[in-house]
Amino acid sequence: MFNVMIGQSGGPTCAINASLAGIIGECLKAPEIGRIYGMIGGIEGVLNDNIVDITSLFADGAEEKLSLLSSTPSSALGSCRIKLPEPGTTEGDGTYGRIFSVIEKYSVGAFFYIGGNDSMDTVKKLSQIAESRSCRTRFIGVPKTIDNDIVMTDHTPGYGSAAKYVASTVQDIAADCSVYSVKSVTIVEIMGRDSGWLTAAAALPSLHGYGPDYVYMPEVPFDVDSFLADVEKAHRTHPGVLVCVSEGVKDRSGEYAGSSDMSGKADVFGNKYLAGIARYLEHVVRERLGCKARGFGLSIPQRCASYLMSATDIAESEEAGRTAVRAMLGGATGIMVNFIRQGEPYRIEYSTVDVARVAKKVKYVPSDYIRPAGNMVTKACFDYILPLTEGEVSQRYEKGMPAYLPAGFFRK
Amino acid sequence: MFNVMIGQSGGPTCAINASLAGIIGECLKAPEIGRIYGMIGGIEGVLNDNIVDITSLFADGAEEKLSLLSSTPSSALGSCRIKLPEPGTTEGDGTYGRIFSVIEKYSVGAFFYIGGNDSMDTVKKLSQIAESRSCRTRFIGVPKTIDNDIVMTDHTPGYGSAAKYVASTVQDIAADCSVYSVKSVTIVEIMGRDSGWLTAAAALPSLHGYGPDYVYMPEVPFDVDSFLADVEKAHRTHPGVLVCVSEGVKDRSGEYAGSSDMSGKADVFGNKYLAGIARYLEHVVRERLGCKARGFGLSIPQRCASYLMSATDIAESEEAGRTAVRAMLGGATGIMVNFIRQGEPYRIEYSTVDVARVAKKVKYVPSDYIRPAGNMVTKACFDYILPLTEGEVSQRYEKGMPAYLPAGFFRK
Repeated sequence: MFNVMIGQSGGPTCAINASLAGIIGECLKAPEIGRIYGMIGGIEGVLNDNIVDITSLFADGAEEKLSLLSSTPSSALGSCRIKLPEPGTTEGDGTYGRIFSVIEKYSVGAFFYIGGNDSMDTVKKLSQIAESRSCRTRFIGVPKTIDNDIVMTDHTPGYGSAAKYVASTVQDIAADCSVYSVKSVTIVEIMGRDSGWLTAAAALPSLHGYGPDYVYMPEVPFDVDSFLADVEKAHRTHPGVLVCVSEGVKDRSGEYAGSSDMSGKADVFGNKYLAGIARYLEHVVRERLGCKARGFGLSIPQRCASYLMSATDIAESEEAGRTAVRAMLGGATGIMVNFIRQGEPYRIEYSTVDVARVAKKVKYVPSDYIRPAGNMVTKACFDYILPLTEGEVSQRYEKGMPAYLPAGFFRK
Repeated sequence: MFNVMIGQSGGPTCAINASLAGIIGECLKAPEIGRIYGMIGGIEGVLNDNIVDITSLFADGAEEKLSLLSSTPSSALGSCRIKLPEPGTTEGDGTYGRIFSVIEKYSVGAFFYIGGNDSMDTVKKLSQIAESRSCRTRFIGVPKTIDNDIVMTDHTPGYGSAAKYVASTVQDIAADCSVYSVKSVTIVEIMGRDSGWLTAAAALPSLHGYGPDYVYMPEVPFDVDSFLADVEKAHRTHPGVLVCVSEGVKDRSGEYAGSSDMSGKADVFGNKYLAGIARYLEHVVRERLGCKARGFGLSIPQRCASYLMSATDIAESEEAGRTAVRAMLGGATGIMVNFIRQGEPYRIEYSTVDVARVAKKVKYVPSDYIRPAGNMVTKACFDYILPLTEGEVSQRYEKGMPAYLPAGFFRK
């Protein structure tokens, strides 16, 4: 018998708790598993020995609580953005010494980490160090990101819901843009510092006749003059032009477009805090085209909105958690759960891949998903995204708002 | 027998089509009404004789179409922000001459206008001019605004849905803010240039334990030092501080707070295009408190999001439309439909009021709804808002997105 420890890391998504629920539910069924521990704030919780025993929380009413957990957005165990030092350095020795002493303290036989690219790197480092220390703890990664940019998997938990949110919201913005006869440009900034997967989803409403005129993704070098020419072309047919732009579009020299307008800060992984492509283009349009313009981002609600979860995403995110536990029970370590699409009609196979093959890599939107002009996506792209956004999750509403697992459910 | 003409004006809301559906449905039942005309783009449509006969669109399947119309966001007849000139001026004579010639051309016996404060002023002007011309056309206003700032009515169509949207979204943002242990401030900018009704709704999630720490409304002079002191106080108990601020908060001199950061543009009603209190405070926090900060607005989705409509709001907005028709059939003109709250349990009485008493006035959040410290609302305020956000509207989803009345349904 052994204990397990689970953590969440990186930016929250509205599917990250579904994976947590999947892991917990599967662990509760396994006779070889004793206590289930949660790290409060991911690896930071381990470093500070801020660990909670969550086993008894599910002693009764487990099914109902796990179901509620699945439809609760934002990391219920808290999160962090900590970059672990390189192994073999003095700092590294201290840090990993601490981590493994906590793992030993709690007799942890399996360590589950739900997170994005950088978190999969954490899983890789820990599993490699475990091997070098002859530590038999198994390290399993469950992917999580709204950006859909983790390699070796058809798509990532969290993406389908964010895509559904972006598509539905951009549709409503398009409807709003269509009411006036005055010439205007609306620029909506979508999350995506490296890849345009989420911005590609913004094009979906055109399938309903309420679409953006153009979408600009980081995979295509951004050129202000081409953008303005696109806008002027659209203005020949209708006054309210709508474009969607990834926060991370870059110009031909590789700099973030409009970077003179950026705030210049960075998070601890060195990811630049991007702000302002929409604001920058708003000014450019006013000055160069002389018409009304408004630019804004969809911002935080893209990743945390609970009321537009994709039922497909939530179900897959839960199953990804269960798959992680089964793979661990089968002896695996140093792996990440992944999805393999099986074709028409849509279904996926749940599998695993060596985490060293995914850590720190980025999956970009392929060129056959982007039209040659670089400012819209292709049918193949729509066909790829649509199944991931399928199905709605019924939230329970109280006092007019969705009601989830109470705040601080897992905290000591 | 006579014809009717209907128009929508000002910023779209997600309830503006429910009022339109209510008017159309009631007109279809009245034997004295012949054709139903729609102005494309409000009064601008009248000025350009851009009028559509929509009667036959409802010759069959009216109930289903009207139901779909009710749950479709954004002004289906288009909208405008045109400021009519003063009567009795040369420009005014030309404009009103044109309007009344179109009214005569289409044998319009009743003119329904769905809009906000400025639109009620249009209804007032037109009804007064009609009287001076001995024109027997009846002019009826149906209120519409997410800001809830029209006087002489308990609340306005459109507010309940926007309040539900703001409350639910701020709840999710609060959950997102609670995951990290790093000290930070999140500033969310809410629409509301004159009054804080929508920002007050942002406080509702505290009823679920996921609330903002403070809300700042235009009714209370904004002071940067007090704001920073509030933030520091909250930071003593938790690292992720969340505040919500109206876009229209003003400092003690009456200037928009952070106005040095504003874009300075204005719309045709002279309403300043406000931008940046959240961005301004983001910079202030970073510089003065030295901690992480992020500021953003909920922006356009506050008014156009279709997926968080309040069932109470939509039902009331429809009934407001029906009430307008009944009042007109009873001979009324120069009036606006209004709501009178009847107490516990919540219900309203539909009535009418002389539009001259409401035009261009603003209803502010009363002082007993705001705590003495000026940075949070009271229980009385929650009790006022909650019933308006009650109930969800089931949208039909297709291709993962809500499916409404097709784009351009009413356009020629």
